[in-house]
Amino acid sequence: MNSNDAVLRPALGVHSEVGRLRKVLVCAPGLAHRRLTPTNSDELLFDDVMWVENAQRDHADFVDQLRGRGVEVVELHDLLARTVADPQARAWLLDRKIVANRVGIGLIEDTRSYLDGLDPRTLTEYLIGGLATSDLPDAFRSEYLALARESTGGREYLMPPLPNTLYTRDTTCWLYDGVTLNPLYWPARHDETLLMKAVYTFHPDFKEATVWWGDPELDWGQATFEGGDIMPIGNGVVLMGMSERTSRQAITQVASALFRHGAAQQVIVAGLPRLRSAMHLDTVFTFADRDLVTLYPKIMDAVRTFTLRPSDRTPGLDITDEGATPFVDVVARALGLPRLRVVETGGDEYASERQQWDSGNNAVAVEPGVVFTYDRNTQTNTLLRKAGVEVVTIVGAELGRGRGGGHCMTCPLLRDPVNY
Amino acid sequence: MNSNDAVLRPALGVHSEVGRLRKVLVCAPGLAHRRLTPTNSDELLFDDVMWVENAQRDHADFVDQLRGRGVEVVELHDLLARTVADPQARAWLLDRKIVANRVGIGLIEDTRSYLDGLDPRTLTEYLIGGLATSDLPDAFRSEYLALARESTGGREYLMPPLPNTLYTRDTTCWLYDGVTLNPLYWPARHDETLLMKAVYTFHPDFKEATVWWGDPELDWGQATFEGGDIMPIGNGVVLMGMSERTSRQAITQVASALFRHGAAQQVIVAGLPRLRSAMHLDTVFTFADRDLVTLYPKIMDAVRTFTLRPSDRTPGLDITDEGATPFVDVVARALGLPRLRVVETGGDEYASERQQWDSGNNAVAVEPGVVFTYDRNTQTNTLLRKAGVEVVTIVGAELGRGRGGGHCMTCPLLRDPVNY
Amino acid sequence: MNSNDAVLRPALGVHSEVGRLRKVLVCAPGLAHRRLTPTNSDELLFDDVMWVENAQRDHADFVDQLRGRGVEVVELHDLLARTVADPQARAWLLDRKIVANRVGIGLIEDTRSYLDGLDPRTLTEYLIGGLATSDLPDAFRSEYLALARESTGGREYLMPPLPNTLYTRDTTCWLYDGVTLNPLYWPARHDETLLMKAVYTFHPDFKEATVWWGDPELDWGQATFEGGDIMPIGNGVVLMGMSERTSRQAITQVASALFRHGAAQQVIVAGLPRLRSAMHLDTVFTFADRDLVTLYPKIMDAVRTFTLRPSDRTPGLDITDEGATPFVDVVARALGLPRLRVVETGGDEYASERQQWDSGNNAVAVEPGVVFTYDRNTQTNTLLRKAGVEVVTIVGAELGRGRGGGHCMTCPLLRDPVNY
Amino acid sequence: MNSNDAVLRPALGVHSEVGRLRKVLVCAPGLAHRRLTPTNSDELLFDDVMWVENAQRDHADFVDQLRGRGVEVVELHDLLARTVADPQARAWLLDRKIVANRVGIGLIEDTRSYLDGLDPRTLTEYLIGGLATSDLPDAFRSEYLALARESTGGREYLMPPLPNTLYTRDTTCWLYDGVTLNPLYWPARHDETLLMKAVYTFHPDFKEATVWWGDPELDWGQATFEGGDIMPIGNGVVLMGMSERTSRQAITQVASALFRHGAAQQVIVAGLPRLRSAMHLDTVFTFADRDLVTLYPKIMDAVRTFTLRPSDRTPGLDITDEGATPFVDVVARALGLPRLRVVETGGDEYASERQQWDSGNNAVAVEPGVVFTYDRNTQTNTLLRKAGVEVVTIVGAELGRGRGGGHCMTCPLLRDPVNY
Repeated sequence: MNSNDAVLRPALGVHSEVGRLRKVLVCAPGLAHRRLTPTNSDELLFDDVMWVENAQRDHADFVDQLRGRGVEVVELHDLLARTVADPQARAWLLDRKIVANRVGIGLIEDTRSYLDGLDPRTLTEYLIGGLATSDLPDAFRSEYLALARESTGGREYLMPPLPNTLYTRDTTCWLYDGVTLNPLYWPARHDETLLMKAVYTFHPDFKEATVWWGDPELDWGQATFEGGDIMPIGNGVVLMGMSERTSRQAITQVASALFRHGAAQQVIVAGLPRLRSAMHLDTVFTFADRDLVTLYPKIMDAVRTFTLRPSDRTPGLDITDEGATPFVDVVARALGLPRLRVVETGGDEYASERQQWDSGNNAVAVEPGVVFTYDRNTQTNTLLRKAGVEVVTIVGAELGRGRGGGHCMTCPLLRDPVNY
Repeated sequence: MNSNDAVLRPALGVHSEVGRLRKVLVCAPGLAHRRLTPTNSDELLFDDVMWVENAQRDHADFVDQLRGRGVEVVELHDLLARTVADPQARAWLLDRKIVANRVGIGLIEDTRSYLDGLDPRTLTEYLIGGLATSDLPDAFRSEYLALARESTGGREYLMPPLPNTLYTRDTTCWLYDGVTLNPLYWPARHDETLLMKAVYTFHPDFKEATVWWGDPELDWGQATFEGGDIMPIGNGVVLMGMSERTSRQAITQVASALFRHGAAQQVIVAGLPRLRSAMHLDTVFTFADRDLVTLYPKIMDAVRTFTLRPSDRTPGLDITDEGATPFVDVVARALGLPRLRVVETGGDEYASERQQWDSGNNAVAVEPGVVFTYDRNTQTNTLLRKAGVEVVTIVGAELGRGRGGGHCMTCPLLRDPVNY
Repeated sequence: MNSNDAVLRPALGVHSEVGRLRKVLVCAPGLAHRRLTPTNSDELLFDDVMWVENAQRDHADFVDQLRGRGVEVVELHDLLARTVADPQARAWLLDRKIVANRVGIGLIEDTRSYLDGLDPRTLTEYLIGGLATSDLPDAFRSEYLALARESTGGREYLMPPLPNTLYTRDTTCWLYDGVTLNPLYWPARHDETLLMKAVYTFHPDFKEATVWWGDPELDWGQATFEGGDIMPIGNGVVLMGMSERTSRQAITQVASALFRHGAAQQVIVAGLPRLRSAMHLDTVFTFADRDLVTLYPKIMDAVRTFTLRPSDRTPGLDITDEGATPFVDVVARALGLPRLRVVETGGDEYASERQQWDSGNNAVAVEPGVVFTYDRNTQTNTLLRKAGVEVVTIVGAELGRGRGGGHCMTCPLLRDPVNY
Repeated sequence: MNSNDAVLRPALGVHSEVGRLRKVLVCAPGLAHRRLTPTNSDELLFDDVMWVENAQRDHADFVDQLRGRGVEVVELHDLLARTVADPQARAWLLDRKIVANRVGIGLIEDTRSYLDGLDPRTLTEYLIGGLATSDLPDAFRSEYLALARESTGGREYLMPPLPNTLYTRDTTCWLYDGVTLNPLYWPARHDETLLMKAVYTFHPDFKEATVWWGDPELDWGQATFEGGDIMPIGNGVVLMGMSERTSRQAITQVASALFRHGAAQQVIVAGLPRLRSAMHLDTVFTFADRDLVTLYPKIMDAVRTFTLRPSDRTPGLDITDEGATPFVDVVARALGLPRLRVVETGGDEYASERQQWDSGNNAVAVEPGVVFTYDRNTQTNTLLRKAGVEVVTIVGAELGRGRGGGHCMTCPLLRDPVNY
């Protein structure tokens, strides 16, 4: 990237699903995953515990390969440590996290005092990895900890562990020239967005960003929105999965905001069933090339499709029920393509069900026709390769245990458009 | 009650668990329970569906008997209908419930318009019973309903059904001369407290009340508090169960508020295990007379007890871990009694487990030594009678299916003290 | 019934679903239900615990009403007590139940010795209600009980409680002139059939019966068969639900046996989904009159129907896939009726789901057009009455908690044919 | 091993947990694991699906390393293929598996005919991997398959897949000079023992073995017994975990049989809680050296210990409740050791819970002080190494997903005693 480029291209913005990926946000596994046990993993949305050291190694390999492809990779711990190095940002965040409703009134001062004494990197470890009552050093332990009943094996957190930060895709979405700060569905993930708000409020590289929608400090009711359901595919179109986790209450608000700002001209809604195995659109449908998608037919064949377009009437949206038209055809039409090429999940009925579960359709492209996927979905990967896609594999044995693949683990910050 | 009394006695206030009960809040079963199905009952916290007509009959019998004992019974539908008859109250409530985050932006105007046209009684039916998208008359149905996918059998609510209003005990607590507006643990119950805030803000009989703590419009984090765990037993003492649903974050805040106002001198915390069968302190421990409690020993024997007292140091609380002293002994001491008489759940190990589950220990007193319980717990009822308690029975076949008995179904508004 | 009739009519035999019911087997609630607790009820296939005394009263009312209609009612405890009064029968049964694989080698002699000393009625209580290790009197307790770890709250049974005997329909089926001894699906119910084999082997009124199929002492693999799925509707036709509990491995064997004996000419198979709410055909479909059925459309509309007929080729069956023809039409055709009148589960979508769950379609007829159902399904009952059916109600608050109604609680032993 | 040895040493027999391992039975992952999907894995007792190719590679590495240590490794597919090459063995097995109760009467001939045409190796694939109805070639498909409803996505098996054969430890146990053919607890595993009975009946290397107890063709009631709970530790002692899966009904029978044959002098019973995480004794306790065990203290500290010894009185057993004496002390005493050295699961409370779950205590020794464990339990492995144990690691990312490690995956056939 020469300096001219820097002048011409905005620092952040995502204009397609498969255009050249220039900058991306990831989050390495760490302390939060060392908190996972067979007892608490369900609550923290993981299907199994993880060998954290190996997950870290596999994630580092993934990052290295992204960098090898010319992608600038930003890691969330680094980003947040840089953010909380600013005393104002640190105070802003701790003022919101170390409060009576969260830590209990007798523990505020000690906890705050302990955290205030930490360097930014260590503070960041706890912000993402969680702070258990038992993590407080003796000098900061008061009689009020008695109620936390550590002795009976209870594990109470003064700040919750956030292992799902691994899936940076969900928390914020760049949609063309602006970003959303997403209200996430599960309580176990709510605090992720607050961390990102701190970044987008204080970090020099992010604080100029245009925020289309979303404020984690407000009560969002049923308006939940997760990036795994959202794809700015270019041509002014955004795909949005309406799923267990992304609701119509949020979809219509974001669509309305995008239309109001002229940021998009069309939102295509994929009505998904409420299943853990298809929790987000990107678990059953992603782009691998300009006109090529990989999808899981058992789910996608049953999707009900709606198109939202700007309208002059309040509240600024027109809704079209696409009826019997298949989702992929609606998408192709919106991109001006005669049709989309489709690579289905590979293997027999057993293998395809297993590969979908193992994030087999959760590809992320670094440029048209070059995607990252997990190594374990060998049959789907082979089909993608036969279709002319270059498939780079990530070791998925540990990383995949929270049910997310390459697409889920990346939040594009800067991506080129594609010509349609 | 002569007119002098009316002058001398404040309108509301609860000074014991067993003193003469003068006024109480209940909520009759209704539309919300007609929404319960085998599919959704878990999510709405009911173990089984209910024969609503019979539950209504049994509840009406319960209310009649309370009245027969001289108790003034206030019913929540009546109370709320009276509240929303005030246009300001109606607007306040709908401004908070019919918003984009809850109903979706295309549906606000129609929904509000429909509700604005309803008489207070019908509006109240929907406020408590829920408003499904399919309840909107044709004149109020726009294209935006398409996203709600009614045709595929989805049941979306514009206002959620609140069947747990049946258990009025939990939502607000009168603790001596003031009240708390409780942040409830489960999302399915959050809106109950908002309804009660409307009552306490606008209803002439309630708006003068002193609120010790709690505002359902704020983000309460982990500070959840449910009335089933809370008992103002007299002598300046309040019992608080620390359970799945009532957290130390809330307990310490409320204790601190009570001490600050001089409203109580001691809070005794019962550290309960996190079990559905022992979700609140009052499911395993209630008072039946001045010095007599009924309890389930399997749970109560394992309770860890703490005492909170006012302190001059910030944050105004001293905590004592009572160690090996049994909970009942700590309570007796606080009341100045040599000991508490105890009636354990009756029957063999099968029957006692079954009766605890069927709210066998969930008695509510109307005066010292006179309690209401479910008819089905015959063995515990017999033991109470042998101990000299007058036991009035409620038919529990339907009402008990949400796991709550007489204590859960009543929120005392005015109750006399007892001499200790 | 005059004495001529007695000569002409065989003692046992069921020739329709709605012809005059002359003799029926039921089983009163008792000790087995007093064993139910919130902890073990799932394993014993009950959704909730039961108020046993009330269930007994409601069941007695049901029996009284059946008798009032001229039905001879046989109660299982009576039947079994009469059976084990025969020393040979008692020995046969205990030889099979009190064995090392079930009670443990150190406990056989003591257990047998204790049971041998009991009168037939008390022995029957334990045979149906279960014998816990803690039920053994001191004189029969040896050191070998140590391994049962009673002290740690474990409840081990030397003979298992059989609370599902309440649903006598499932264990044996009279199909025209003979009976099947059914291998039941869930381990918790296996021993029910052994008790019935004792009855059919030794009881004077039963030992002459022709057994078409089934022997609980053999390993039946996947060939499970439950009476709730089976209906001998007359005209040589038997309906069989192919469900979670009744398998094609059993259906084809029984069909083949019936055809071989000339006992039936046609078996119509209803392919049901595997759902707890539709565990048997009779939970979603029963006859109320000669040409009138009550059914739950959400399930029955999706049934796939097959007809089995005798064939000369091995293994003696022809199978016809009925394709798009609705189940009720296939049934009507088999009975020679132009169509069946249908009463669907009543009420709106909430109420009908709830009533199906509460056994609303589980009617049992005592003669054409006279059925017994639970009181709580008021809307379905009203529709049946509007269709000209006389509906007698059973109190279902307690009895229904194992998910069975009047049809499930009755095993017809003698029922007249209907003219088709 | 010189030829003299061959004369003196019997072909099979296991005399300790840590003596030199000379011959062992394992089973490679294969078709059965390719049947696992997110939908059926629970029923088949796996926590997650598996990347079968990698599991095969990791298992092959394990086998190679065992061989590198001088262990003769027998693989179950090879063993069974060799067995069913004998027409008599093939007929014996298919006569028991392809019967009406399992496949349905219309499908016996076709299925048998298809299987009879297969070579031993392919037949073995299906015997272990399962035979789905959809696996039948067209030439063997009759109209009777209609009832299997393949078209609706049902997956019915004519022979069930047996993925838990991977854990060969459970199905048979060599206890000193004889073997048990174990009745397994879960229906999903029952057929494993039938396969092993074929081996022990027909395979030339196995058919001379002395069978102490167990016959999969009989009804074993509650007498279930799994090798993961059983350890012949030497000195005439056998440890037996009394768990969810291994019952006192079986333990006392096996102990009695061993005593009767003079095969053992003492059985030490570890009374375990019923938890999936501690399903067998070897998931929380294994030997790593002559006097060194690795254990998970949270479970083992709560074990209640009993000792069984031969007795002249019927039924030949004396039972001693060891009361407060720790299990490890009872074991040490039985071996004549002053004490056992103990390596607890490593890491903090999170890591140790996670490692126990990941089979961290499930070590298998090939000689005193040399064990195989999974690579992922780095902290426990380090502690073992610090205690002087040589730890060889197996890649556990895939193999461990059924919750079994090196001990579970090996069934010792020939192991030397250790001097105590």
